[in-house]
Amino acid sequence: MARANRALYRAFVDRDIEAMDALWARAAPVACLHPGQPPLYDRATILASWRAILRNPAQPTTVRIVEDVVVARGDMGMVICREILPGAHLLATNVFTREDGAWRMIHHQSAQAPGPAGAAPAPPAPKRDRRKMH
Amino acid sequence: MARANRALYRAFVDRDIEAMDALWARAAPVACLHPGQPPLYDRATILASWRAILRNPAQPTTVRIVEDVVVARGDMGMVICREILPGAHLLATNVFTREDGAWRMIHHQSAQAPGPAGAAPAPPAPKRDRRKMH
Repeated sequence: MARANRALYRAFVDRDIEAMDALWARAAPVACLHPGQPPLYDRATILASWRAILRNPAQPTTVRIVEDVVVARGDMGMVICREILPGAHLLATNVFTREDGAWRMIHHQSAQAPGPAGAAPAPPAPKRDRRKMH
Repeated sequence: MARANRALYRAFVDRDIEAMDALWARAAPVACLHPGQPPLYDRATILASWRAILRNPAQPTTVRIVEDVVVARGDMGMVICREILPGAHLLATNVFTREDGAWRMIHHQSAQAPGPAGAAPAPPAPKRDRRKMH
Protein backbone atom coordinates (compact mmCIF):
# COMPACT_ATOMS: atom_id res chain seq x y z
CA MET A 1 0.00 0.00 0.00
CA ALA A 2 2.98 2.30 0.58
CA ARG A 3 3.62 1.84 -3.14
CA ALA A 4 0.07 2.85 -4.07
CA ASN A 5 0.50 5.88 -1.83
CA ARG A 6 3.71 6.82 -3.62
CA ALA A 7 1.89 6.38 -6.94
CA LEU A 8 -0.53 9.13 -5.92
CA TYR A 9 2.26 11.62 -5.39
CA ARG A 10 4.19 10.46 -8.43
CA ALA A 11 1.10 11.10 -10.56
CA PHE A 12 0.94 14.56 -8.98
CA VAL A 13 4.59 15.32 -9.68
CA ASP A 14 4.48 13.82 -13.17
CA ARG A 15 1.24 15.66 -13.99
CA ASP A 16 -0.03 12.24 -15.07
CA ILE A 17 -3.83 12.22 -15.09
CA GLU A 18 -3.93 8.71 -16.57
CA ALA A 19 -1.91 7.35 -13.67
CA MET A 20 -4.19 9.24 -11.30
CA ASP A 21 -7.24 7.75 -12.99
CA ALA A 22 -5.78 4.23 -12.80
CA LEU A 23 -5.09 4.67 -9.10
CA TRP A 24 -8.64 5.49 -8.00
CA ALA A 25 -11.05 2.61 -7.32
CA ARG A 26 -13.73 1.93 -9.91
CA ALA A 27 -16.15 -0.33 -8.01
CA ALA A 28 -15.94 1.04 -4.46
CA PRO A 29 -17.42 4.39 -3.40
CA VAL A 30 -14.80 7.14 -3.40
CA ALA A 31 -14.33 10.47 -1.66
CA CYS A 32 -11.87 13.33 -1.81
CA LEU A 33 -11.47 16.25 0.58
CA HIS A 34 -9.08 18.83 -0.85
CA PRO A 35 -7.91 21.47 1.65
CA GLY A 36 -10.59 24.09 2.33
CA GLN A 37 -12.83 22.88 -0.48
CA PRO A 38 -16.26 21.27 -0.62
CA PRO A 39 -16.27 17.47 -0.34
CA LEU A 40 -16.28 15.39 -3.51
CA TYR A 41 -18.03 12.02 -3.59
CA ASP A 42 -18.23 11.25 -7.26
CA ARG A 43 -15.41 9.54 -9.16
CA ALA A 44 -15.71 11.71 -12.29
CA THR A 45 -15.78 14.91 -10.20
CA ILE A 46 -12.79 13.76 -8.17
CA LEU A 47 -10.78 13.03 -11.33
CA ALA A 48 -11.85 16.39 -12.79
CA SER A 49 -10.55 18.09 -9.64
CA TRP A 50 -7.21 16.34 -10.00
CA ARG A 51 -7.10 17.21 -13.69
CA ALA A 52 -7.54 20.88 -12.78
CA ILE A 53 -4.80 20.60 -10.16
CA LEU A 54 -2.40 18.85 -12.54
CA ARG A 55 -3.04 21.40 -15.28
CA ASN A 56 -2.61 24.39 -12.99
CA PRO A 57 0.84 25.88 -13.61
CA ALA A 58 0.72 27.52 -10.17
CA GLN A 59 0.71 24.09 -8.49
CA PRO A 60 4.04 22.90 -7.11
CA THR A 61 5.88 20.35 -9.22
CA THR A 62 7.55 18.72 -6.26
CA VAL A 63 6.29 17.06 -3.13
CA ARG A 64 8.20 15.16 -0.50
CA ILE A 65 6.32 12.52 1.49
CA VAL A 66 7.57 11.79 4.99
CA GLU A 67 6.32 10.22 8.22
CA ASP A 68 4.26 7.61 6.34
CA VAL A 69 2.17 5.46 8.66
CA VAL A 70 0.57 2.44 6.99
CA VAL A 71 -2.29 0.52 8.58
CA ALA A 72 -3.88 -2.33 6.62
CA ARG A 73 -6.41 -4.93 7.58
CA GLY A 74 -7.62 -7.40 4.98
CA ASP A 75 -8.66 -5.64 1.82
CA MET A 76 -8.68 -2.12 3.25
CA GLY A 77 -5.98 0.12 4.57
CA MET A 78 -4.77 3.66 4.99
CA VAL A 79 -1.63 5.69 4.80
CA ILE A 80 -1.26 8.82 6.88
CA CYS A 81 1.60 11.01 5.76
CA ARG A 82 3.07 14.48 5.70
CA GLU A 83 3.15 16.20 2.30
CA ILE A 84 6.00 18.71 2.14
CA LEU A 85 5.33 21.14 -0.67
CA PRO A 86 7.39 24.24 -1.41
CA GLY A 87 6.40 26.60 1.39
CA ALA A 88 3.68 24.41 2.89
CA HIS A 89 3.22 21.34 5.04
CA LEU A 90 0.04 19.28 4.75
CA LEU A 91 -1.09 16.16 6.56
CA ALA A 92 -2.95 13.60 4.50
CA THR A 93 -5.11 10.55 5.03
CA ASN A 94 -5.19 8.23 2.02
CA VAL A 95 -7.49 5.21 2.18
CA PHE A 96 -7.17 2.22 -0.12
CA THR A 97 -9.08 -0.93 -0.93
CA ARG A 98 -8.00 -3.93 -2.94
CA GLU A 99 -9.63 -4.12 -6.37
CA ASP A 100 -8.61 -6.65 -9.02
CA GLY A 101 -5.63 -7.59 -6.89
CA ALA A 102 -4.22 -4.06 -6.56
CA TRP A 103 -4.54 -1.33 -3.94
CA ARG A 104 -6.82 1.37 -5.27
CA MET A 105 -7.56 4.70 -3.67
CA ILE A 106 -11.00 5.28 -2.18
CA HIS A 107 -10.36 8.42 -0.16
CA HIS A 108 -7.97 11.33 0.14
CA GLN A 109 -8.08 14.11 2.70
CA SER A 110 -5.32 16.65 3.10
CA ALA A 111 -5.12 19.77 5.18
CA GLN A 112 -2.60 22.43 6.07
CA ALA A 113 -0.48 21.61 9.09
CA PRO A 114 2.37 23.13 11.05
CA GLY A 115 5.87 21.84 10.25
CA PRO A 116 7.47 19.31 12.60
CA ALA A 117 8.54 20.78 15.95
CA GLY A 118 11.91 22.47 15.60
CA ALA A 119 12.01 21.86 11.86
CA ALA A 120 13.33 24.37 9.42
CA PRO A 121 10.66 25.82 7.16
CA ALA A 122 9.99 23.90 3.95
CA PRO A 123 12.55 24.77 1.30
CA PRO A 124 11.54 27.04 -1.56
CA ALA A 125 10.65 25.48 -4.91
CA PRO A 126 13.75 24.34 -6.78
CA LYS A 127 14.47 26.15 -10.03
CA ARG A 128 14.61 23.04 -12.12
CA ASP A 129 11.72 20.65 -12.41
CA ARG A 130 12.42 17.55 -10.33
CA ARG A 131 10.05 14.92 -11.67
CA LYS A 132 10.86 12.18 -9.17
CA MET A 133 10.01 12.40 -5.54
CA HIS A 134 12.75 10.28 -4.01
CA MET B 1 -19.96 1.79 12.15
CA ALA B 2 -22.33 4.76 11.84
CA ARG B 3 -23.11 4.10 15.50
CA ALA B 4 -19.43 4.13 16.48
CA ASN B 5 -19.10 7.39 14.56
CA ARG B 6 -22.01 8.89 16.49
CA ALA B 7 -20.39 7.69 19.71
CA LEU B 8 -17.37 9.88 18.94
CA TYR B 9 -19.47 13.00 18.72
CA ARG B 10 -21.68 12.03 21.64
CA ALA B 11 -18.54 11.69 23.79
CA PHE B 12 -17.53 15.15 22.56
CA VAL B 13 -20.91 16.69 23.39
CA ASP B 14 -21.19 14.86 26.71
CA ARG B 15 -17.62 15.78 27.68
CA ASP B 16 -17.21 12.07 28.38
CA ILE B 17 -13.53 11.14 28.34
CA GLU B 18 -14.29 7.57 29.46
CA ALA B 19 -16.56 7.04 26.46
CA MET B 20 -13.85 8.57 24.26
CA ASP B 21 -11.26 6.22 25.76
CA ALA B 22 -13.52 3.21 25.24
CA LEU B 23 -14.04 4.16 21.60
CA TRP B 24 -10.38 4.21 20.54
CA ALA B 25 -8.72 0.93 19.54
CA ARG B 26 -6.30 -0.62 22.02
CA ALA B 27 -4.47 -3.16 19.88
CA ALA B 28 -4.29 -1.44 16.48
CA PRO B 29 -2.05 1.55 15.75
CA VAL B 30 -3.95 4.82 16.06
CA ALA B 31 -3.58 8.33 14.67
CA CYS B 32 -5.30 11.66 15.13
CA LEU B 33 -4.97 14.82 13.06
CA HIS B 34 -6.70 17.73 14.78
CA PRO B 35 -7.18 20.82 12.57
CA GLY B 36 -3.95 22.79 12.13
CA GLN B 37 -2.10 20.80 14.77
CA PRO B 38 0.86 18.42 14.71
CA PRO B 39 -0.03 14.77 14.04
CA LEU B 40 -0.56 12.43 16.99
CA TYR B 41 0.34 8.75 16.69
CA ASP B 42 0.31 7.58 20.28
CA ARG B 43 -2.86 6.43 22.03
CA ALA B 44 -2.09 8.13 25.35
CA THR B 45 -1.24 11.39 23.60
CA ILE B 46 -4.40 11.22 21.51
CA LEU B 47 -6.54 10.66 24.59
CA ALA B 48 -4.74 13.50 26.38
CA SER B 49 -5.54 15.77 23.43
CA TRP B 50 -9.23 14.84 23.65
CA ARG B 51 -9.16 15.34 27.43
CA ALA B 52 -7.84 18.86 26.88
CA ILE B 53 -10.56 19.52 24.28
CA LEU B 54 -13.31 18.15 26.50
CA ARG B 55 -12.12 20.18 29.49
CA ASN B 56 -11.79 23.40 27.50
CA PRO B 57 -14.80 25.60 28.33
CA ALA B 58 -14.25 27.51 25.06
CA GLN B 59 -15.02 24.35 23.04
CA PRO B 60 -18.54 24.15 21.59
CA THR B 61 -20.95 21.89 23.45
CA THR B 62 -22.93 21.04 20.36
CA VAL B 63 -22.06 19.44 17.06
CA ARG B 64 -24.34 18.32 14.28
CA ILE B 65 -23.13 15.53 12.01
CA VAL B 66 -24.47 15.47 8.46
CA GLU B 67 -23.59 14.00 5.08
CA ASP B 68 -22.23 10.78 6.65
CA VAL B 69 -20.69 8.44 4.10
CA VAL B 70 -19.87 4.98 5.43
CA VAL B 71 -17.52 2.61 3.62
CA ALA B 72 -16.67 -0.72 5.26
CA ARG B 73 -14.82 -3.75 4.03
CA GLY B 74 -14.28 -6.68 6.35
CA ASP B 75 -12.88 -5.54 9.66
CA MET B 76 -12.00 -2.01 8.59
CA GLY B 77 -14.08 0.93 7.52
CA MET B 78 -14.40 4.68 7.48
CA VAL B 79 -16.98 7.37 7.92
CA ILE B 80 -16.58 10.70 6.17
CA CYS B 81 -18.85 13.39 7.54
CA ARG B 82 -19.45 17.09 7.97
CA GLU B 83 -19.17 18.42 11.52
CA ILE B 84 -21.34 21.51 11.98
CA LEU B 85 -20.14 23.41 15.02
CA PRO B 86 -21.41 26.81 16.10
CA GLY B 87 -19.86 29.16 13.54
CA ALA B 88 -17.72 26.53 11.80
CA HIS B 89 -17.97 23.68 9.34
CA LEU B 90 -15.38 20.90 9.37
CA LEU B 91 -15.00 17.81 7.23
CA ALA B 92 -13.83 14.68 9.00
CA THR B 93 -12.45 11.28 8.14
CA ASN B 94 -12.96 8.71 10.88
CA VAL B 95 -11.44 5.26 10.39
CA PHE B 96 -12.48 2.21 12.38
CA THR B 97 -11.39 -1.36 12.86
CA ARG B 98 -13.17 -4.21 14.57
CA GLU B 99 -11.67 -5.13 17.94
CA ASP B 100 -13.29 -7.61 20.33
CA GLY B 101 -16.40 -7.59 18.17
CA ALA B 102 -16.92 -3.83 18.21
CA TRP B 103 -15.92 -1.00 15.88
CA ARG B 104 -13.08 0.94 17.45
CA MET B 105 -11.56 4.14 16.16
CA ILE B 106 -8.07 4.05 14.71
CA HIS B 107 -7.90 7.44 13.02
CA HIS B 108 -9.53 10.86 13.03
CA GLN B 109 -8.73 13.77 10.77
CA SER B 110 -10.81 16.91 10.67
CA ALA B 111 -10.24 20.19 8.92
CA GLN B 112 -12.06 23.46 8.34
CA ALA B 113 -14.28 23.48 5.28
CA PRO B 114 -16.66 25.83 3.54
CA GLY B 115 -20.37 25.36 4.24
CA PRO B 116 -22.50 23.53 1.68
CA ALA B 117 -23.20 25.56 -1.47
CA GLY B 118 -26.10 27.91 -0.85
CA ALA B 119 -26.32 26.95 2.80
CA ALA B 120 -27.05 29.42 5.52
CA PRO B 121 -24.14 29.97 7.88
CA ALA B 122 -24.01 27.67 10.88
CA PRO B 123 -26.26 28.92 13.68
CA PRO B 124 -24.68 30.56 16.71
CA ALA B 125 -24.20 28.52 19.88
CA PRO B 126 -27.48 28.08 21.74
CA LYS B 127 -27.64 29.71 25.17
CA ARG B 128 -28.52 26.52 26.99
CA ASP B 129 -26.36 23.47 26.92
CA ARG B 130 -27.88 20.89 24.60
CA ARG B 131 -26.25 17.63 25.59
CA LYS B 132 -27.68 15.47 22.84
CA MET B 133 -26.75 15.81 19.21
CA HIS B 134 -29.95 14.67 17.52
